[in-house]
Amino acid sequence: MPGISKKAQVMPESPIRRLVPYAEEAKRQGKKVYHLNIGQPDIETPKVSLDAIKNLDDKVFAYSHSAGNESYRRKLTGYYQNIDIPVDHNEILITTGGSEAITFAFMACMNPGDEVIIPEPFYANYNGFAVSAGINVVPVTSSIENDFALPPIEDFEALITEKTKGIVICNPNNPTGYLYSEEELKSLAEIVKKHDLYLFSDEVYREFCYDGNSHFSAMHLGMDEHVIMIDSVSKRYSMCGVRVGCLVTKNKDILKAVLKFAQARLCPPYLGQVASEAAIDTPKAYFDEVYQEYIARRDYMVNRLNEMQGVKSPMPKGAFYTVVSLPVDDADVFSQWMLESFDYNKQTVMMAPASGFYSTPGLGKNEVRIAYVLNKSDLENAMQCLEEGLKAYPGRTI
Amino acid sequence: MPGISKKAQVMPESPIRRLVPYAEEAKRQGKKVYHLNIGQPDIETPKVSLDAIKNLDDKVFAYSHSAGNESYRRKLTGYYQNIDIPVDHNEILITTGGSEAITFAFMACMNPGDEVIIPEPFYANYNGFAVSAGINVVPVTSSIENDFALPPIEDFEALITEKTKGIVICNPNNPTGYLYSEEELKSLAEIVKKHDLYLFSDEVYREFCYDGNSHFSAMHLGMDEHVIMIDSVSKRYSMCGVRVGCLVTKNKDILKAVLKFAQARLCPPYLGQVASEAAIDTPKAYFDEVYQEYIARRDYMVNRLNEMQGVKSPMPKGAFYTVVSLPVDDADVFSQWMLESFDYNKQTVMMAPASGFYSTPGLGKNEVRIAYVLNKSDLENAMQCLEEGLKAYPGRTI
Repeated sequence: MPGISKKAQVMPESPIRRLVPYAEEAKRQGKKVYHLNIGQPDIETPKVSLDAIKNLDDKVFAYSHSAGNESYRRKLTGYYQNIDIPVDHNEILITTGGSEAITFAFMACMNPGDEVIIPEPFYANYNGFAVSAGINVVPVTSSIENDFALPPIEDFEALITEKTKGIVICNPNNPTGYLYSEEELKSLAEIVKKHDLYLFSDEVYREFCYDGNSHFSAMHLGMDEHVIMIDSVSKRYSMCGVRVGCLVTKNKDILKAVLKFAQARLCPPYLGQVASEAAIDTPKAYFDEVYQEYIARRDYMVNRLNEMQGVKSPMPKGAFYTVVSLPVDDADVFSQWMLESFDYNKQTVMMAPASGFYSTPGLGKNEVRIAYVLNKSDLENAMQCLEEGLKAYPGRTI
Repeated sequence: MPGISKKAQVMPESPIRRLVPYAEEAKRQGKKVYHLNIGQPDIETPKVSLDAIKNLDDKVFAYSHSAGNESYRRKLTGYYQNIDIPVDHNEILITTGGSEAITFAFMACMNPGDEVIIPEPFYANYNGFAVSAGINVVPVTSSIENDFALPPIEDFEALITEKTKGIVICNPNNPTGYLYSEEELKSLAEIVKKHDLYLFSDEVYREFCYDGNSHFSAMHLGMDEHVIMIDSVSKRYSMCGVRVGCLVTKNKDILKAVLKFAQARLCPPYLGQVASEAAIDTPKAYFDEVYQEYIARRDYMVNRLNEMQGVKSPMPKGAFYTVVSLPVDDADVFSQWMLESFDYNKQTVMMAPASGFYSTPGLGKNEVRIAYVLNKSDLENAMQCLEEGLKAYPGRTI
């Protein structure tokens, strides 16, 4: 019997989805499970997109251009223009979600064995994309005591070797909700230039910046050859399932290289592109409403968490996640226990253990990532469950 | 300025899409271009699928399961049951097109540097997927003189090294249209077992077998641990743009491994899955009509080609392509010339030069792949253009 590959062996299970079978079993047992584990907002997809799909009168769902429909890419330039990121439609390559964009970027920029530095905790699937590309993730640790701010530049410098080819930044950050400032980005830019690296900037939560903070894009750094921006419609328009993202760069060599990877897989999803192109006309009122909703959820949830004994969460300034420290021996065990062995009035909570978002073994052991993507009433119930679960859990530490 | 990766350097441009800019320019000049280069059928997508999309009343286009919607996978088992391939829904993993299925299979089964043997000419994008996975394609040559039948088993045996981990077969074959017989499959099975290899069986053209021939699936070989079947809805239901395929295997280790790759990219396209699930109810009359249409196109086109001076095409028994030898010095140059420098009544033809479907340098130099995916009247015009082009081309060899 032939064996599986080394990549398949080291490929991590998604910490976000690893507990899915336990959640499914809990549901089979009649428990209501509140999903705080995944960034699937309950916010409705914009009506313009729903309508675009309903009103589609194509008779053939045909291939699109490998780089994505030209009409969509041209319209996207307007979206970027509005946020002061002037790009040409040929500097945008539409991908199957942000996932494919970052996979292509890794494959096109780095050789097997090369290294990319990422502040941890980081979006766990970066590990998966790195394994696929055969590159190594080198973590630089940020900490909850410091609200997960960018680690000091010296910490990055200390990790740079001749294998280092890039830095990945997710801004606003998934999983921490931290919003990097212009100063932080500029300090990163210096080492990127100094060591001739790539800066892979994942900006899929751009629309979710709170408390009057504005977003500073890596595209504003004036480092055209170095910056590769990753984007996605998933969160912006609450349509994660359409699988449409994009890669944006002014580096022509990378554009040319990535297009070859894109040609091999033929094209990004056509129906998703239809929904995404329509979404660009989403009225401002939609975003205002979503924004207010998330602020209210965040404020409620983070305050409620910090009121629980032994629980600590920073106040995130962006995205819709927070990494929370819990008074438990092992957040992996606790999260599974909440699904397997606990319920409060036939309800329980699914969280993403934070250990999977760290690359350094042993870190994040008492932390979980919580997404505030549920409506307030569900969040209230979820928080109640969590609080009761923490009281009942045999491995509690206070 | 940071460089691009070795993979990006060796990644081939798609021979199917390489000429796209020339076709775009030809269109800008007012020429009508008949696309014989790409397997995008003009056949309508089944009404059940178009309706499923139109009638969708979701308010959120949400993530699906990483392995694909369970309802879709369960329904697919019925489709496979009907063609005598009994599988459980957990033995099916829905992918973003057949492209992703084969990429996942390569990544999960083979290490960088490992080798996979593929009869050439072969679907050119296998090269791209192999580059992504870091594996090497070892071609075994089939020839037009023999209608592109499976090369003798000794030819395979001669290529097997300790690096050989698998064989890829596309049946019916893209680009040749050859349909492998039960005997050919069984002879392959012997070396697969003898050398403990994987057999990657791409069966996306299963519905397109002509002249009373039936399809013999690799799943019928009774080699559960060795066979990984690649499938797609693209051609079956003429909906290439939805990007939905699947990987089917009874090898549990591979299923587990591939699921991890699938989790990293979150899920396959949701809207495409809706269309694909509905498509399973496509009435038989649809396929009968499509079948008759393709037979008529094939018969017309292949006979017309063979009537042209110096042109030779086998009569394909499956899929909707044929590899044709032309009386030209260089089919790459000729194909580009047809777009750039030729028109017949403001019309011209786009073909896929066959050199890109061969891995051995120099082979296929006077061959092109032609897809018969246009209606008869367009095909007639396209054939006329081709014949006139062959007469006018400066590099003609007769």
